[in-house]
Amino acid sequence: MEKRDVLYSGKAKSVFLTDDPDLYVLQFRDDTSAFDGEKKQQLARKGMVNNRFNAFVMGKLADAGVPTHFERLLSPSESLVRRLEMIPVECVVRNVAAGSLCRRLGIEEGRELNPSTYELFLKNDALHDPMINESHAETFGWAAPHELAEMKRLTHQVNDVLQRLFLAGDMILVDYKLEFGRYNGRVVLGDEFSPDGCRIWDRKTRKKMDKDRFRQDLGDVIETYEEVGRRLGMSFD
Amino acid sequence: MEKRDVLYSGKAKSVFLTDDPDLYVLQFRDDTSAFDGEKKQQLARKGMVNNRFNAFVMGKLADAGVPTHFERLLSPSESLVRRLEMIPVECVVRNVAAGSLCRRLGIEEGRELNPSTYELFLKNDALHDPMINESHAETFGWAAPHELAEMKRLTHQVNDVLQRLFLAGDMILVDYKLEFGRYNGRVVLGDEFSPDGCRIWDRKTRKKMDKDRFRQDLGDVIETYEEVGRRLGMSFD
Ligand SMILES: Nc1ncnc2c1ncn2[C@@H]1O[C@H](COP(=O)(O)OP(=O)(O)O)[C@@H](O)[C@H]1O
Ligand SMILES: Nc1ncnc2c1ncn2[C@@H]1O[C@H](COP(=O)(O)OP(=O)(O)O)[C@@H](O)[C@H]1O
Ligand SMILES: [Mg+2]
Ligand SMILES: [Mg+2]
Repeated sequence: MEKRDVLYSGKAKSVFLTDDPDLYVLQFRDDTSAFDGEKKQQLARKGMVNNRFNAFVMGKLADAGVPTHFERLLSPSESLVRRLEMIPVECVVRNVAAGSLCRRLGIEEGRELNPSTYELFLKNDALHDPMINESHAETFGWAAPHELAEMKRLTHQVNDVLQRLFLAGDMILVDYKLEFGRYNGRVVLGDEFSPDGCRIWDRKTRKKMDKDRFRQDLGDVIETYEEVGRRLGMSFD
Repeated sequence: MEKRDVLYSGKAKSVFLTDDPDLYVLQFRDDTSAFDGEKKQQLARKGMVNNRFNAFVMGKLADAGVPTHFERLLSPSESLVRRLEMIPVECVVRNVAAGSLCRRLGIEEGRELNPSTYELFLKNDALHDPMINESHAETFGWAAPHELAEMKRLTHQVNDVLQRLFLAGDMILVDYKLEFGRYNGRVVLGDEFSPDGCRIWDRKTRKKMDKDRFRQDLGDVIETYEEVGRRLGMSFD
């Protein structure tokens, strides 16, 4: 497998073609952005940490029977993935109320959500990723009804696995987003899972262990990502 | 049946108790408001027109088998309705793109929506009626899953009846909101259906025939509501 031209460069990752039209290289960069790209910074070692983190979580999910795009680690900051036709919708799960949910719906931060909420957002920077529902996705052709049903089913399966995994590390998986794509007509989990796209709190102290450390200038961003990884059973050496 | 104390006064209607605990009087006032209550005005004859309009539409829906709270007209601006335990969620159907949908999702105004979109909004003035989804409604106890399913089913049934009705009057029912409540454990259509809560366009000229005439100072608000009614087969004398 040979790495070829860059196909796409997002806010934190780049996608490269390979000599196999079915495989991409995902490069996790050190770039970090928040608030719709308004706040930007390079955080040393972030690409490496998120790449390993993602590989670890994708492995756990594959073990539990969730189809993912992940093939294997290629280098400290690169992974080989199957090429998906990405669905431009982010699926957000919330196990505990935080962030925009609290502002939008007047819910107090920290309230346990039972059952967990499930929200869809359109991936569209110009529109600031507006909240949508399944009817919008169907009407505007962003995803077909059977794909939306599969995204919801897989998201619940992912949540069962991850809630348990984080709890075993004495952490609460507060909320996170997942992206899916199509591979040979099947809905497959794609993009990444890392502390960049979740909220993770220490179970006892409620210390923030995720990208809110960057958003809110709490310091030790990458050190804390690594601590999360270690508590889940990873090693970064 | 005897009218008693006012129980609740909303932006455009008041609800009165009666000597029968199961029945309310709904009074349609001339008050008109828009933009979250920022723009307010009295429009002569509006209460009467909306009361009759609502009675007419509720009759058409009942004929088609949709359960509604409507019992009968009591006076030019009052109707007798069954007391519902209102569900604090507005169900919005869109057959053609207009208004907030266009702004939120970057859709051009006037685009036909197929299938029609179906959106839920929390009735909460302080939060400016935020968009929600069924998962929020379940988690926060605003409606149970079987109630949400019934609201969606009834809304589609309503849409079939009303799209046809307006088309027969050479008008397009662009979008509208419905509210539901509980009566003896059943989900029943409540509140009102009038040009205050829809967008209605002339099919050929696309002339606005609804509350946008008030919002956008287009004039002839109530005269146009009456024209809509006449085209649907009502008489206002
Ligand atoms: N397996 C895959 N196939 C195709 N595209 C992918 C795959 N995995 C991730 N991507 C895309 O690569 C991009 C990653 O870049 P990212 O920095 O996360 O940018 P973005 O701001 O678009 O989220 C995303 O657009 C994501 O959808
Ligand atoms: N059958 C009913 N039983 C109980 N409440 C009702 C019924 N029909 C309408 N209502 C309530 O009466 C109020 C009507 O007032 P309205 O002027 O539309 O105010 P709002 O600003 O709350 O929409 C609404 O809150 C509506 O939910
Ligand atoms: Mg991304
Ligand atoms: Mg109302």
